[in-house]
Amino acid sequence: MSNNVNRQFRLKSRPVGKIKTTDFDLVEEPVPTPGPGEAVIRNLYLSLDPTNRIWMSDMDQYMPPVEIGAVMRGGGIGKVVASNSDAYKVGDTVSGLLGWQDYYVAGPNDEIPVGVLPAELPVGLPTMLGACGLTGLTAYFGLLELGQPKAGETVVVSAAAGAVGSVVGQIAKLNGCRTVGIAGGPEKCKWIVEELGFDAAVDYKAPDWREQLEAVTPDGIDVNFENVGGEIMEAVMARMNLFSRMPLCGMISGYNTDEPMRGDFSPILMRRINVRGFIVTDFMEKYAEATMELATWVATGKIKSQETIVEGLENAPTAVNKLFEGENLGKLVVKIADE
Amino acid sequence: MSNNVNRQFRLKSRPVGKIKTTDFDLVEEPVPTPGPGEAVIRNLYLSLDPTNRIWMSDMDQYMPPVEIGAVMRGGGIGKVVASNSDAYKVGDTVSGLLGWQDYYVAGPNDEIPVGVLPAELPVGLPTMLGACGLTGLTAYFGLLELGQPKAGETVVVSAAAGAVGSVVGQIAKLNGCRTVGIAGGPEKCKWIVEELGFDAAVDYKAPDWREQLEAVTPDGIDVNFENVGGEIMEAVMARMNLFSRMPLCGMISGYNTDEPMRGDFSPILMRRINVRGFIVTDFMEKYAEATMELATWVATGKIKSQETIVEGLENAPTAVNKLFEGENLGKLVVKIADE
Repeated sequence: MSNNVNRQFRLKSRPVGKIKTTDFDLVEEPVPTPGPGEAVIRNLYLSLDPTNRIWMSDMDQYMPPVEIGAVMRGGGIGKVVASNSDAYKVGDTVSGLLGWQDYYVAGPNDEIPVGVLPAELPVGLPTMLGACGLTGLTAYFGLLELGQPKAGETVVVSAAAGAVGSVVGQIAKLNGCRTVGIAGGPEKCKWIVEELGFDAAVDYKAPDWREQLEAVTPDGIDVNFENVGGEIMEAVMARMNLFSRMPLCGMISGYNTDEPMRGDFSPILMRRINVRGFIVTDFMEKYAEATMELATWVATGKIKSQETIVEGLENAPTAVNKLFEGENLGKLVVKIADE
Repeated sequence: MSNNVNRQFRLKSRPVGKIKTTDFDLVEEPVPTPGPGEAVIRNLYLSLDPTNRIWMSDMDQYMPPVEIGAVMRGGGIGKVVASNSDAYKVGDTVSGLLGWQDYYVAGPNDEIPVGVLPAELPVGLPTMLGACGLTGLTAYFGLLELGQPKAGETVVVSAAAGAVGSVVGQIAKLNGCRTVGIAGGPEKCKWIVEELGFDAAVDYKAPDWREQLEAVTPDGIDVNFENVGGEIMEAVMARMNLFSRMPLCGMISGYNTDEPMRGDFSPILMRRINVRGFIVTDFMEKYAEATMELATWVATGKIKSQETIVEGLENAPTAVNKLFEGENLGKLVVKIADE
């Protein structure tokens, strides 16, 4: 743990394929001091997300790519340790795009302002990055606003043991849907069914995964919450029903390549599927209400929250690859410092 | 012209690639007589549509494929020449799935009932198959219900000189949109701009079509009415704006192949595009009102209707290929008999 320096991961080159430590410079700077109107934040937890990989590339994307030489962009939670700002007081817990570093300087010119969390939180800080944070909100809005699930319908979610997918499946169950998760390996499949209450799981690492998918969706699929893309997406789409819905949240299988992320459009046409891409910030004006609902569900045990915590900022570049290799259960978080 | 026999094109084999005459048997039967509750219709005009090619194949589709040995399915307009039915009287003009034949027997067991047209029609019969028929309705509902065009927005339509595309562009203009059509060859491009009032055209047969598309969509694309699929669809999608809409009406470029009709999904994700497949029958309950509006537009010259008429039922199999080679202007119709 470093308290006297601010370690920063600066993007050195755009990764080709899997992310390598050598794609970053790890530099040390003095701990910053706040200028007028600014506050300095000690970062505590860093959120690792598939979108990190997108930001490292120059593919068509939601936000500008991280510039070469800039501190790697990343969501996180921290504590205000020094402040010349009316917006932040020392001791406040905050969340925002704090970056892959020990300290962040928040100021009035932040493009996306860092937000102050309530003093009393119903859940731990990692959960505030996961099921009660942007990850949970992604699941919430994508499923409920775009997926429009009705009781009795079949909802399929890919990357179902991941941060978003595990919450999607649990919200679908709360809405009375038959819920099928696609996950890699028997342990994850067992976990989403036995611990999270999914109706069924498909192990995409098993040679018979297509037959498994067919067997557990006898009435077709009404909502496909898509996180993965590629051949899994095509196999799911081939079983989607007339007038079904497909919130397109991500296509992680394609982020490590430079190829277009192609798939068959014909089921969209023939089955009149409604496909809608989205990002959680599209629903920003509804965050407060949804966060409250998610926190209540987690606090009352209706939604089980799970985090995989990696110790040490220095491990961020290697840890982020876990997302692409399916090594994490639930939300993947790097612990940077003690609370 | 044959008056004593009923010529029928019966599907002999599923076409591989381009449709061949030898994919059909042309058989002659006696002119049918109506059984109890039935009426016999003399077919006058046959509608040729891209969906004919789909019906000939066994790809995933809207309706069951035409069975081998069955009369080829097709929309048409005809006149009732004999009737034992309360629903039809001799002399009525009717439209429906009359098939590739001289005579159709309508009855109470028709899966999709043949409809009686009003005695006084504001436009000619070919137009009742085109701009004021299912083709016009396809343009109308796809654009207005799913495309949700707003004044000042940019609407792009592929196959713009075709039956659906030419109407889409004109309705978009009526709604105050910047309207861009993609068509094959300088004549069609000139026609949609100078005759139909499109703001711009892109000639996809020109080597610089991608640059043309870029030049005429300086503010990106808000609605893509997609008829074609393939590389044209991908190029258009690459220029679609945030929260743009894409009614998916057809992907004619893929119908002559057995390959999945793939395209890049990443713009859907990154630009939050709403893609919705549809078929005109999804909006059946609104046909009457929309047909009235279309007929008014055509009758008052606000929408120009254009038909390419091929003489003689015997030419149907070769004529349908015109759709895939872009040889028709507007609606492609086969004239079977004099009115």
